[in-house]
Amino acid sequence: MDFSIIRIARTVLHVTNLQASREFYVNGLGMIETESDENHVYLRGLEEHSHHSLLLKKANAAHVEVLSYKVQKEQDLDELEKLFLSQGLKTKWLPKGQQHAVGRALRVHDNSGIPLEFYAEMEIVDRMLQRYDLYKGAKIQRIDHVNCAVPDVQKAYDFYTQQLGFSCSEYTETENGDLWAAWLFRKPTVHDHAFMSGPGPKLHHFAYSLSDRLSILDCCDVLASMGYAQSIERGPGRHGLSNAFFLYLRDPDGHRIELYTGDYLTTDPDLKPKKWDLNDPLRQTFWGHEAPDRWFNEASTFIDIETGEVIEYKQPVLAQRKPEIMV
Amino acid sequence: MDFSIIRIARTVLHVTNLQASREFYVNGLGMIETESDENHVYLRGLEEHSHHSLLLKKANAAHVEVLSYKVQKEQDLDELEKLFLSQGLKTKWLPKGQQHAVGRALRVHDNSGIPLEFYAEMEIVDRMLQRYDLYKGAKIQRIDHVNCAVPDVQKAYDFYTQQLGFSCSEYTETENGDLWAAWLFRKPTVHDHAFMSGPGPKLHHFAYSLSDRLSILDCCDVLASMGYAQSIERGPGRHGLSNAFFLYLRDPDGHRIELYTGDYLTTDPDLKPKKWDLNDPLRQTFWGHEAPDRWFNEASTFIDIETGEVIEYKQPVLAQRKPEIMV
Amino acid sequence: MDFSIIRIARTVLHVTNLQASREFYVNGLGMIETESDENHVYLRGLEEHSHHSLLLKKANAAHVEVLSYKVQKEQDLDELEKLFLSQGLKTKWLPKGQQHAVGRALRVHDNSGIPLEFYAEMEIVDRMLQRYDLYKGAKIQRIDHVNCAVPDVQKAYDFYTQQLGFSCSEYTETENGDLWAAWLFRKPTVHDHAFMSGPGPKLHHFAYSLSDRLSILDCCDVLASMGYAQSIERGPGRHGLSNAFFLYLRDPDGHRIELYTGDYLTTDPDLKPKKWDLNDPLRQTFWGHEAPDRWFNEASTFIDIETGEVIEYKQPVLAQRKPEIMV
Amino acid sequence: MDFSIIRIARTVLHVTNLQASREFYVNGLGMIETESDENHVYLRGLEEHSHHSLLLKKANAAHVEVLSYKVQKEQDLDELEKLFLSQGLKTKWLPKGQQHAVGRALRVHDNSGIPLEFYAEMEIVDRMLQRYDLYKGAKIQRIDHVNCAVPDVQKAYDFYTQQLGFSCSEYTETENGDLWAAWLFRKPTVHDHAFMSGPGPKLHHFAYSLSDRLSILDCCDVLASMGYAQSIERGPGRHGLSNAFFLYLRDPDGHRIELYTGDYLTTDPDLKPKKWDLNDPLRQTFWGHEAPDRWFNEASTFIDIETGEVIEYKQPVLAQRKPEIMV
Repeated sequence: MDFSIIRIARTVLHVTNLQASREFYVNGLGMIETESDENHVYLRGLEEHSHHSLLLKKANAAHVEVLSYKVQKEQDLDELEKLFLSQGLKTKWLPKGQQHAVGRALRVHDNSGIPLEFYAEMEIVDRMLQRYDLYKGAKIQRIDHVNCAVPDVQKAYDFYTQQLGFSCSEYTETENGDLWAAWLFRKPTVHDHAFMSGPGPKLHHFAYSLSDRLSILDCCDVLASMGYAQSIERGPGRHGLSNAFFLYLRDPDGHRIELYTGDYLTTDPDLKPKKWDLNDPLRQTFWGHEAPDRWFNEASTFIDIETGEVIEYKQPVLAQRKPEIMV
Repeated sequence: MDFSIIRIARTVLHVTNLQASREFYVNGLGMIETESDENHVYLRGLEEHSHHSLLLKKANAAHVEVLSYKVQKEQDLDELEKLFLSQGLKTKWLPKGQQHAVGRALRVHDNSGIPLEFYAEMEIVDRMLQRYDLYKGAKIQRIDHVNCAVPDVQKAYDFYTQQLGFSCSEYTETENGDLWAAWLFRKPTVHDHAFMSGPGPKLHHFAYSLSDRLSILDCCDVLASMGYAQSIERGPGRHGLSNAFFLYLRDPDGHRIELYTGDYLTTDPDLKPKKWDLNDPLRQTFWGHEAPDRWFNEASTFIDIETGEVIEYKQPVLAQRKPEIMV
Repeated sequence: MDFSIIRIARTVLHVTNLQASREFYVNGLGMIETESDENHVYLRGLEEHSHHSLLLKKANAAHVEVLSYKVQKEQDLDELEKLFLSQGLKTKWLPKGQQHAVGRALRVHDNSGIPLEFYAEMEIVDRMLQRYDLYKGAKIQRIDHVNCAVPDVQKAYDFYTQQLGFSCSEYTETENGDLWAAWLFRKPTVHDHAFMSGPGPKLHHFAYSLSDRLSILDCCDVLASMGYAQSIERGPGRHGLSNAFFLYLRDPDGHRIELYTGDYLTTDPDLKPKKWDLNDPLRQTFWGHEAPDRWFNEASTFIDIETGEVIEYKQPVLAQRKPEIMV
Repeated sequence: MDFSIIRIARTVLHVTNLQASREFYVNGLGMIETESDENHVYLRGLEEHSHHSLLLKKANAAHVEVLSYKVQKEQDLDELEKLFLSQGLKTKWLPKGQQHAVGRALRVHDNSGIPLEFYAEMEIVDRMLQRYDLYKGAKIQRIDHVNCAVPDVQKAYDFYTQQLGFSCSEYTETENGDLWAAWLFRKPTVHDHAFMSGPGPKLHHFAYSLSDRLSILDCCDVLASMGYAQSIERGPGRHGLSNAFFLYLRDPDGHRIELYTGDYLTTDPDLKPKKWDLNDPLRQTFWGHEAPDRWFNEASTFIDIETGEVIEYKQPVLAQRKPEIMV
């Protein structure tokens, strides 16, 4: 590979009510508002020195515009263009200056149809880690990962590990030995990008890393006292997979965000991926709780990098839609 | 009143497998085993200087023998006997020495049929609060309260507040203004004894106070790693009522125990009871989570203080069995 | 005794800069500002339903005006007046309405010269316990205790236990068996009022109860990011005595406040006071840290209930000024 | 560079009493004992899947044998040998099998005289992250960094950044603009290796990463209840530098270990090193606490990779020995 992807770097969401979203993400979750205008809100976590990791754009419908990766250097973008073109996948350049605070960017669709973006440069701002007087809500620290539902996890896995240089930390197989889900990483944590079998491509959730478990409990209390109790979808709980302590929320447009803390470092090249059986009751929630059906059935739609049209989803190639847990 | 009840002091449970129960309560929850013999295990929390607050007795079936209250002084027992006799309720004396580590005890049935016990004296042992090297599991601190399902909450409320000297901190009414549940206290916390409308008399749960929320999360992790994930019935979550952070567990015999932390002091005589509507979605769980049906439908049976026979339950006088939550 | 003292209820402090104090107590420590005017700020903790537990009054010099206790009922005030008069101690009535939000109040000097106040009634306001969106800083919950340096601890101990109905939870003796410090309570926690041997009468500190240890660490971070690092005098640490996790701060006028969490209930009448040796290195700080000299040498002065003049202090009757710790 | 160093991987300590050290590290700090024999104890953290990250060897005197780095692949060792030889530095091979559980290893002295070791292979064992039933003490997760006192920090900095491929996250300068300390990393955290100006080469401390702040408070409580209060040297507190929450302990032989949690990821190539002034009072301890003198004056000695003789230390080239903090 002649390029190096550093890490998942941002999510670009279309939301229908900027003010409602700002209230949720800034006052409820504790994100830092770097700046905003009539049609955009730029948000980051307390640890982040990049201008933003979440871009909210005012729109008529709630979709996901793109998932963005930071790469090592400018030339990596040209190498990535070659790769995607060689695979017959769509690409599109956004010159520096077209997107506020972002350098030259390459947008593509991956082999599942997911709209991705790559850039080397984003404006640097102050890390607010020691501005404890600004901490509130979940005290969100930094973007951790995205999780996509795709109809063929094996196909996505092959592309990301063989073509894009991702490694696998953990994965889930059905009883037949088919790959049902995979956790893939570039930065040395459990994942930057996970894939689950399901109607897709869809964004199941994007996730932020917190500094501890209590930040998740505090966030539930704050959301409830602000009248957002119904935004709490699943958790708090402990994942078997990744070991992270988690909470899933639905934002005012229904986009799902995970608050996540307590996975492990994956620096070592001799680390072996950890296998889980889909029906292992400890896999999803180490404490044995089942996820609600809507956690499996609902996800955000992507739009095309050129036309802006909604990307149609396909049914998954594997029959099993969710774990069968017999307690 | 010519007596003073101090606080809820112990629960006496019949369990079918002493070894399984010990494993759950001592290694899973972190209780201190004061002592034990072939047929008894005596347990206490880290803060408790009383010999035990949970007595497990080996038996053929899982029932609740009695709920015990500590009173101010020996003479209070005689006054209590007079009161129960005057109300036509059953009483029975257990002389000092009949129960290990316990002084003279008066057993009665209250006006819902619940077997209660009163004593002034229990053997004093070391408080283990600063033996942090022994902390494990939920690091259980002290007994907090018991919660009973009864068919007529108003009747129980009247007896406990007018005859036994309890105060009410919070209560729940149906849409018709009927009393559906009440939280009553002698020690100045939110409750020693709660009553909920339901088939009864039954012990819905007994509860221990912990020092913080993380002790509850730690306990979930420990139980899951010991293979007890299925014992986690409801939570962790935050109660609207009482404000406590909670977890409900089922012990190996199905007895329900609540781990509880974060309520408030009720010392002030001018404190007004707080009213909740039964259908308020924040009442049970401030974060909006619904309790599972079995949390409403299952509870432990009591036995008669004289015959040891199971006490038959009666259907509740109020029609509504559980909250209707429309999210 | 024909009266019943409920609990320590408020501290009335003279401060030289109301705005600086408000910034410290409200934004730094997270107290709720019930109301304020040009010369007063009324503050309470998140759990408190009383109008205030800390009253800051603008003044030319930083002194302590009075320490206030809540009593059971109005008549208790008359009984208390009789007691103090019978002991030849100064008393003074403040009719209802003279102090904002407070009913009829009796002010006295105790037998160490400390200005005390008793009242049965204070205006009731909303408990903010579930307004988690307002939590900040140390998330102060409720007033816990006051601690006074007095020249003769035994004399103060005798008066509070024999005349005022306080019980002792823990105490400290010198090698000679003299009483060097005592922790006395009315509400069933470790203390409402502690006495330490030292030049006095002085207010060593007043203390607020928090819900957990992390609130103390959060407070240190918030204070440091606000520029208040120099206000952190001692801790965070664990007391041997009382078992509480603590932090001592100095407010902008030098008044000392303790943040305190994790002691135990003292409801049981058969609880035996716990004795500590003054030179036991685990007594003050269970982790073995020494307190800085200024923690022993500095304290706030009281003023006379009638003249408003500073009360002169006397040297202690015991020779030992602080523990000798040999590590 | 034709090699890639992955991360700091272990510390090899000589200790005088294996049993005392095991008690401290296993029961006090919560490390996992992978295995041990008469002369060795092999320890790891709960997250670690490498056989050990701390090797204790029985010896007559307490020294540090070597600090070990894991490299990407076997050939990297040969490239590293070339580098050290080209610089005129001592090297020594330990064939696979000579050290239990470790592959072929290259030992060297760096340009400050510090004994380093490089290996690509260490035996893989189970990660115990989800064995919550084994968590105790500080619940140590993984090795984080080592910190060495050296007489010439600029010289060490140049060698590690220019020859070994380390990056700098934060650094400290004197008023004259001289480099007084530097935090250097290979794995994307704040550091693998820090250098401070002082008599050296000496190991100031080695550090383990924990999952949260409470693990540090819990550890203080556990150590105190085991009789180890005097092992707590500094903290708990918050570093300005790195933002980590910390505790410094002295093990039974006086080796210093830091418990560390809460720094940030350093994945981005465009991250700028953060500069601190040596006399900034928030640098060392964000809360303004001073470190005790012995924290500056005491450190562990290294031994020669060939002779085993103690390495003599040299006085630092910079005059300032510690920060001057004026509060």
